[in-house]
This record gives sequence, C-alpha cells and structure tokens, in this order.
Amino acid sequence: MHSTTEQPHDIRISGGRVVSAFTGEEFAADVLLRGDTISGVLPPGAPGAARDHVDATGMLVVPGFVDAHMHIESSFLTPQTFAALTLARGTTTVLADPHEIVNVAGARAMRWMIEAGRGTPQTQLWGVPSCVPALEGLEHAGASLSADDIAELLRLPGVIALGEVMDYRAVVADDPRMRGIVAAARDQGVILDGHCPNLSGAELSAYMATGVDSDHTKNRTEVVLEKARMGMLMMLQEKCLLPETVEALLALPQLPPLCLVTDDLAADHILGAGHLDHIARVAVRAGLPAAAVLRALTWTPAQRLRLYDRGVVAPGKRADLVLLRGELVDFDPAVVFAGGREVAREGAAMYGTDEAAVRTGKEASTGAPDLGPLADTLAVEPQTADSFRWRVDLPDGTHRFRAMRVNSRDTYTEAAEIELPVRAGEVAWEGRTALVRVRNRYGRSGTVFAPLLGRTLTPGAVATTYAHDSHNLLTVGTSRAAMAAAAAAVVEDGGGVAVVHGEEVAARLPLPVGGVMSPDPAAEVARRSRVVRDALTGWGWEHLNPFMSVSTLTLAVSPSLKITDLSLVDVVRREPSGATTAG
Amino acid sequence: MHSTTEQPHDIRISGGRVVSAFTGEEFAADVLLRGDTISGVLPPGAPGAARDHVDATGMLVVPGFVDAHMHIESSFLTPQTFAALTLARGTTTVLADPHEIVNVAGARAMRWMIEAGRGTPQTQLWGVPSCVPALEGLEHAGASLSADDIAELLRLPGVIALGEVMDYRAVVADDPRMRGIVAAARDQGVILDGHCPNLSGAELSAYMATGVDSDHTKNRTEVVLEKARMGMLMMLQEKCLLPETVEALLALPQLPPLCLVTDDLAADHILGAGHLDHIARVAVRAGLPAAAVLRALTWTPAQRLRLYDRGVVAPGKRADLVLLRGELVDFDPAVVFAGGREVAREGAAMYGTDEAAVRTGKEASTGAPDLGPLADTLAVEPQTADSFRWRVDLPDGTHRFRAMRVNSRDTYTEAAEIELPVRAGEVAWEGRTALVRVRNRYGRSGTVFAPLLGRTLTPGAVATTYAHDSHNLLTVGTSRAAMAAAAAAVVEDGGGVAVVHGEEVAARLPLPVGGVMSPDPAAEVARRSRVVRDALTGWGWEHLNPFMSVSTLTLAVSPSLKITDLSLVDVVRREPSGATTAG
Repeated sequence: MHSTTEQPHDIRISGGRVVSAFTGEEFAADVLLRGDTISGVLPPGAPGAARDHVDATGMLVVPGFVDAHMHIESSFLTPQTFAALTLARGTTTVLADPHEIVNVAGARAMRWMIEAGRGTPQTQLWGVPSCVPALEGLEHAGASLSADDIAELLRLPGVIALGEVMDYRAVVADDPRMRGIVAAARDQGVILDGHCPNLSGAELSAYMATGVDSDHTKNRTEVVLEKARMGMLMMLQEKCLLPETVEALLALPQLPPLCLVTDDLAADHILGAGHLDHIARVAVRAGLPAAAVLRALTWTPAQRLRLYDRGVVAPGKRADLVLLRGELVDFDPAVVFAGGREVAREGAAMYGTDEAAVRTGKEASTGAPDLGPLADTLAVEPQTADSFRWRVDLPDGTHRFRAMRVNSRDTYTEAAEIELPVRAGEVAWEGRTALVRVRNRYGRSGTVFAPLLGRTLTPGAVATTYAHDSHNLLTVGTSRAAMAAAAAAVVEDGGGVAVVHGEEVAARLPLPVGGVMSPDPAAEVARRSRVVRDALTGWGWEHLNPFMSVSTLTLAVSPSLKITDLSLVDVVRREPSGATTAG
Repeated sequence: MHSTTEQPHDIRISGGRVVSAFTGEEFAADVLLRGDTISGVLPPGAPGAARDHVDATGMLVVPGFVDAHMHIESSFLTPQTFAALTLARGTTTVLADPHEIVNVAGARAMRWMIEAGRGTPQTQLWGVPSCVPALEGLEHAGASLSADDIAELLRLPGVIALGEVMDYRAVVADDPRMRGIVAAARDQGVILDGHCPNLSGAELSAYMATGVDSDHTKNRTEVVLEKARMGMLMMLQEKCLLPETVEALLALPQLPPLCLVTDDLAADHILGAGHLDHIARVAVRAGLPAAAVLRALTWTPAQRLRLYDRGVVAPGKRADLVLLRGELVDFDPAVVFAGGREVAREGAAMYGTDEAAVRTGKEASTGAPDLGPLADTLAVEPQTADSFRWRVDLPDGTHRFRAMRVNSRDTYTEAAEIELPVRAGEVAWEGRTALVRVRNRYGRSGTVFAPLLGRTLTPGAVATTYAHDSHNLLTVGTSRAAMAAAAAAVVEDGGGVAVVHGEEVAARLPLPVGGVMSPDPAAEVARRSRVVRDALTGWGWEHLNPFMSVSTLTLAVSPSLKITDLSLVDVVRREPSGATTAG
C-alpha cells in the first residue's frame, strides 16, 4: 500500500510556535487547515502544499478561547456585533445565557438570539434562563418560564444548558418550582450551570445534589477550595482572580479543572481592556501559571461544553485558532481563525456583517433576522412630571418611610428609614431625598416608589430599561421634572439609558432591541456608554461602575433591600418590605 | 421560605475519608446515597437520616474506576462473569471493544455482548470494532464489517465509540476502506479510539487528522511526549507505565490528561493481580503521584467517555463508589457500590447472576441471554492425523521453505528459512521442525502450514480457536498425531485451548462461547488458564506469557511474519509471503 497523492490544504500557517493546551509546551510547527478543520500540525518546512499562506513568525499559535459562562446582553450588543467584537479578541466559542432578554420577551426572544448568532463565525451555544422571573411572585418581568416552557426551549438546536440556577436559596429550600425546573433539565441530560456565592457545607451539598455542578460567582477563598474539593467546576471571572485564591489553588495536591469566564462585560470594557484575553492576563497577574491559564481558556471549557472538536491545536480538531503576539503571558491576539476562516486581524473583524438589517428591523438579503419580538417592547404611558407623583394612602403629617441606602463600593443595598411629610395623599419628597421609582413596562400597573439614600447628587436623574432582572423602567432622580425628562428620553429611544443634568438630557444610550441591546456597532455603543458613565459620575453617582450600581437597584436576588415593580423586597427573607415602616 | 422536611436517604456511608478527584485532597465526610445517586457529601455527623448504614471507618471513599480502553474477551469471560469479577476490584464502568468476538460472528455477536452486559450492575459501554477482518484480503475471519455495517452498529444503544483504529498504516496511506470507516464514525460524532505504536511526525499528524485522538499502545518515551503535546489523549496500560516515561511526563510544564486502562487482561491475571486497581498500583510504583493516578482512573476517563454523571465523589453524581483500605497508594477495594447498590465486598460480587442460563444456552427466568449466535461457531471437519499432512505442489527432493521464528521475550516474529524434504507431494517435516497450521473455521477451505523455529519443544502440540484476530483454528506441534489430538480436543469443546504432551491431552480450557469465551465462573477459568500455561511451559514453550505468544502467531498487523488461513503474511509490506522461498 502506498500513500495516495495528498489533497492540498487550504491554508498553511508557518513560522509560529504552537502552545499545547495538554502539556503547556511551546514547539515550532506549521499548522495546516482544510475546510473548517486542522489538517496537519507538522515540523516546520515539512511537505504539505496549501493554497494560502499565513506568516506567524514570532507568534504563538493557540486554540480559540472558549467562554463557558457569559451573557451577551451585558455587552449591550446584539449577537452579531458581539461576535465581531469578541472574535477579534480570540473568543471563538461562547455558551450564552440570554437571561436579560428572555426576562423581557420570553421564548420568542430566545429563538431570536439563537437565530441572530447563527449567521456569525463565532460558535454561539445557549443556555435556557432558569429564573424567569428571577424572584417568582415578587416582580413581574415581560415573561415567565415554567418547567414545561424550559423543557421545550432545551430542545432547540444550539441549546445545551440550563442557565445559571441563581435562585440557589429556593433550590436549597427544595422549592417545588425550582425543583421542577432543574429536574426537567436534568432529565434532558443538559449542562446544569450554577450560581451560589459562598454556599457551603450541607447547603452546598443540597444544591449540588440536584445536579448543578459549576459556579462562577465570587466566593471566599476557603469556599473556592471547598467547592473544588466537592467536585464543583470552578469558573473564575475577573473578581474571583485574587492572588490569595490562586495561591491557595496552587497549594492543593493537584490543580482542579478550572474555566476562565467573562460573565458580564460591557462593550466599552471589551473594547478597552479585552474579553477572555483580558481575563487571561488578570489570571496571569494573579499568579496562575500561563500553561494553566491556557488550559482554563480552551481545553477545560471545551470539555465542559461537550465540544470534543476543539480546545487544543491538534490535527482533526476544528480550526479555531488564535495567533498571539509576544509571550504567552500577554495573550495578545493578532490574527484569529474560526472554522478555518481568518475572521479577525489586528483587533478588527474581517468578515461581513449586515448590521443595517438589524438596525432597520427589515429582513435583509443576507438573511439577517429582523427585530421581531424585540422591537417595541416598551408598553408604558407617556412619562411626565405627573408620573412621578408619589401617592400614598396616609393622612397628612410626617411619616416614617423605608428607604434604600446605596454605597460607592459594590452593589450591596441596605434598608434605612427617612421621615417625610405627606400632604393631600402625596409624599412631599422633592428637596428632601432622592427618589427611585420602578414602573412595570410590560402593560401592567405595577409602580413602586422609595427614597434613595447614600448619594450626594446635584439636580438631575437617570432612567433605564436595563434594570436587572425584569428590566422594567427604573428611574432615580432629585425632582419629578428631571425624572420625567430622563424617562421620556428612554421611552422615545424605545429603551436604553438616559442621564439628565438639571432638566436637560446629558447622555443617552438607546437600547431599542428589547430595551437592553443596541443595534449599533460596538465602538458607537462603547462611546455612548462612556458618556453615560461620565454623566452619572458628573451628577454625583460615585461608584467604580456607576451604571451597574444603578441597574442592580432592582436585582431582587442580591442583598439586601431591592425594589421591583411590586414592592420593596427584603432579599434575605424573600418577602415584601413595607414602604412605610411600622409604628 | 423554609426547608421542607427532608426525604430520607437510602444509605449513609460514615466514618471514611473522601478523596477528591479534583483537588487530590482527602477529607472526612459522610456520603449519602438515594436511588442511584449521591444525595449528599456532608461533614461527619451532620443531620441526614438514612435507612441503611455502612461503616467506612479507616477507609478512603473514591469514585468507581472507569476503564476507557479494554476488551472483555481477553479475560475469556462473558460480559456477565467479567462484570462480577471486575466490579469486585472497583471497576464500575468500561468501554469495551468486542473486537475478538465480532471477528468470529459479526454484528450478531456485538448485539449479544451488549445484551449480555445489560443485566449487570457494571456500566458496559461499547465501541464498534473498526478492523474486521484486521487485515482485509489477507485473512478470512467469521465476519467482515463494511463502513455501512459499522455505521449501523454505531446507532445501537450503549454504543459510543469506534473501536481502536489499529490498521493505522492503512489510515496514514489514506486507504479508501479505512477512510470510509473512520469518516462514517466521525459523521456520527462518536469517540474515535486509536492504536498507533510509535507513530510520529507527519504520519502521526495524518493519522490524527482523521479525528482519531487517543492511543493506548506502548510508545517510546519521546513519542508519548510528542503525542501528548499534539493533543492525543494518552491511555497508559501496564507496559506503558515505565518510570522513565512517568518521570518525563511529570517534567512537563503541566501534566496532560491521562487515562489508566487495562486493554487485555486474562481472568487469572485479574484474580491474581487485579484489574484497574492493579494498574493504579503499577502507576504509583512508576512514580505517578497518587492524586494524578486517581484522576486518571476516574474523572479523566469519565470525561473521555462523555459520562458527565460520574468520575468524582460529589452530590448529584452517580453513586459508583469504591471504599479502599489503607492509603491511596494501595488502591485496595474493600466495598464497591454501583448505581447506589453495594455490589461487592472483600473481593467478591454480592449480587445474583444466572450463569447457568449462559452455560446451558437456555433462556432463564432472569432474562439472561442464551448463546444465540455464539453457540457452535466451529465449522471445521473432524481433526485427525491426516488433517496435518502438509501437501505441496513440488517435486521430490529438498526444498527451502519460509519459516516463522519466535522468541521468548515478546510477540515479535521474524522470517527464517529451513530446508525440508518433499516426498510424493508431502513435506516430511516430522522430526525436523515444529509445524504451525492455521485452518479456517468458518466453513471456508483456507489452510496454511509453516515451519516454526525458536523453541526447544518436547513431543506435543497446542491448539486454539483463540488466535488473534480472526480466531481460526491454530495448531502448533511436533507431530501430526499430537496436533490432531490437540485440535480434536478443541473441536470437542466447541472452541478453546488444548495442550498435548506426547499424544495425550495435558490441559484444556474450553471456550465454547464463540470459541473465545467461557461460560464458567472466573475462578474456574483462571484455574484452567493456569493449567494451560503450565502445560505450555512444561512442553518447552518458554515465554513470560506463553498463551499470548501462541495466540499472536496469527496477528497479521503485528511485525513481522505472521500466518493466517490464507498465507504467511509479511506484515511490514502488508502482502503474502511465499511459503517456499525463491531460488
């Protein structure tokens, strides 16, 4: 038997050094591609004809990065523009949990996202959000998914996971609804993604007993170790990558399997700092050896996502490759291949997208989907100063009201109290406190007001439809007029963010795609995001991440006092917290 | 929300120390089981009622062992008795490649094996043999599997892999038949298991480019490193676990993923030395850290087999557990759980089997399968001294014949020559050389003789239907009468092994299940195997593993001169080697 004439390869990447995700070694090799597959990894100069050549001299050749836990909506971008932005940073595969947009528009939104991602060269796989709404009975989102709804969505092509089971308290308490949802997913054999900050001991055991076996939240170092020891796959995002945590992991008899993940990164952060490439650099700085970083970016997450065709530069595997400048510690993508195509070079996507089709809501010739169920998701009356009259069923006089107190460090909120006068059934709050209002934006009547303490604000307001997790219309301000101006601007934009200084709009980020995403290119979204951030800071909203601080005022699964369209919520007790206090 | 009344657990294993396959740590914990699942891993003494208790004081609790590459037939046992024997050694999951029995009886044998294994508490998963016959055109097996046949078998429940692609030379040469088989399996997305001793460089790249991505053969240390670097999953069996190989692996920037596998272990070896527990001890002795050994026995092979429900002692995972005596380096199973049931204790299986049903070929009340297509697989005429007349189409006189030369170290055979007289069309070999004969046993006419050199034998013979890979009737002896006695004994037994001293049968191991397996209990098979081995040694067949040395005389994919029912085979050139030499 003799070798037949060899088929020519399509591309030969020569002169580079391959880094093995298995052994951590760097070795000189030429990488050949045919179709969407790596057709050879050969000693430099070995025979093997190819139609095209790519010079990788001085570069490292590594597998495309795989993100095992993230939310596309956090970037404010659609799946199409997200793909273009992050492919350029080396992320060739993501498992996305469209938790935000499905809270807005339900199963139809899930289908839209999947369809939108299908046209890109990025492998976008999907988890079905497990907590829609996040807190059953204490808020109204735009949709509600039952166990049956979730079971149906789990059967869609491209869906491989139940999205992060964030209501871990309900799971631990064996709440029937969450039990049913997790069991339905388990029956289908999909990945069960977790979320359980600092859960430990018997409660951690109870949570894992349902089959949930990963966590991407921030844990104390000893809990990171406990979870890894217990067989929970630890997914580390930026805030988890503390030197003391990494040091403790490296001191174990052996390093457990690890994934590096992005979770929530906004477009301006990705453009400025990077995507998984950035997380990789953070991990290196925290002390994780470069070889372990590479494995946690590629092989381990690919195994987690049950993608056997990627995660290592090897013949026969999918040709998802990143050519890195400099040393492995730099993780600086110069050229990116996805499925055998060169899709990005020098930080810019190299393939065609038809964002215009998305922007106009029209079906374009390229087959890009229109906005469908994600157009016109704002069902709310015109916003005027009258909309911000806080009416109460109380006699005239001074009353004590429950207030939210925020801080400048994190998203923790706590209950406080403030005395305010009531006159003719209306709270006279202007000039005495800032006010927060949540208005249901899905055609329901829910409207809740509360005083907001902890900020020294100049006259102004912020309004947004990007408010975790139900994404109702959230407005915070110092006067009814300012709040009305901000809310009206958001309504006019079909959703988004608006910041008002005095009574004038100072910054706006339109998010007309379901009220949480923009059809615009990433650079434009990033620019507007920065303007919004600066306007919030200029208003007096002091915080490392001002917009996150605003958008989590409504996140009723995060301690300790939050506000929804139905009530103030005591998060720890999982029950309404009265707007007026006792006595 | 308050915790509901907790369901009671079925079993509580208390007092032991769990070893984490993730971190390598040992920690005191009680392990609770409910149904087939681990329902809790709790601090010792934590609340959690259970119906039954198991005392694990002083013991280590580890995951059930997972064997990612092995052949049940090598034990001479049926799937039922194999399960009983190896569960007692901690092996709770195997991926079995029924290469031997499918060469005997084709797709029907595959279905029989799957059905036979289904009734056991061991998870037996299956690969479809890729090379049936092993060497197309140079031997006749009892079956031949085309790419279409293989594609059909790959769809059977429990089938998850294409069995080891051992004809790697054909793959590298892009042989159309092997290309079609591998492509058919790849299209179905199953595991592609490899076999490519010392394949390296461009040839290794070509082999892997088909998608085959594991190897379990013995490689030189530098090839082990090359394959691991290239992203090939290395599976290490006993002969691979050399201290210098382990030392080289440990010197890498990071340890690549590894699996420990058994490949071919006979019943007497398993009873005497152990199964995967033995391989684990060999690995420890070779210098692999115990934590890495445990991971290579559990988590990594479970991931390889795409079994996400096992490989680590964690709540929510399948309750496949081994309680080990002593330290982790001893790997000494005391109690074994499979799917939440205690299935073995102190080295003995604890569940009912109905071996009688298998033995008699009758369907028993337990539903054990009868022998079906594996009964009466010997289609061969009565064996007499006349059967061993070596007739040739040569004139009277002395002629030079090609001979096989064996050695006492390994299974390598080489071509040699011998001059023998021919009289009246028959070679007068008796008293001048030992003779080997292969007789097709599937109703075909193929019969090939050759002189055998390299042994100093007393009068006698051996015959067997367990002769890799076609399992035709192989006989070696010093006289026609002795060979006839051995072959007749094997035929009488419906297949098996018989050793003759003088002209009397000295040892026999009946293998009536397809001519390669015994329906008897493991202890009986082991006892008879030892008698056969001793009889071979007593005859003068000097070898560390005498029976393997016999049964591989026919293995025409192993260098360098082998014999089939069609011809002597030059393995390296993959072509017939003339029985008489030129000139």
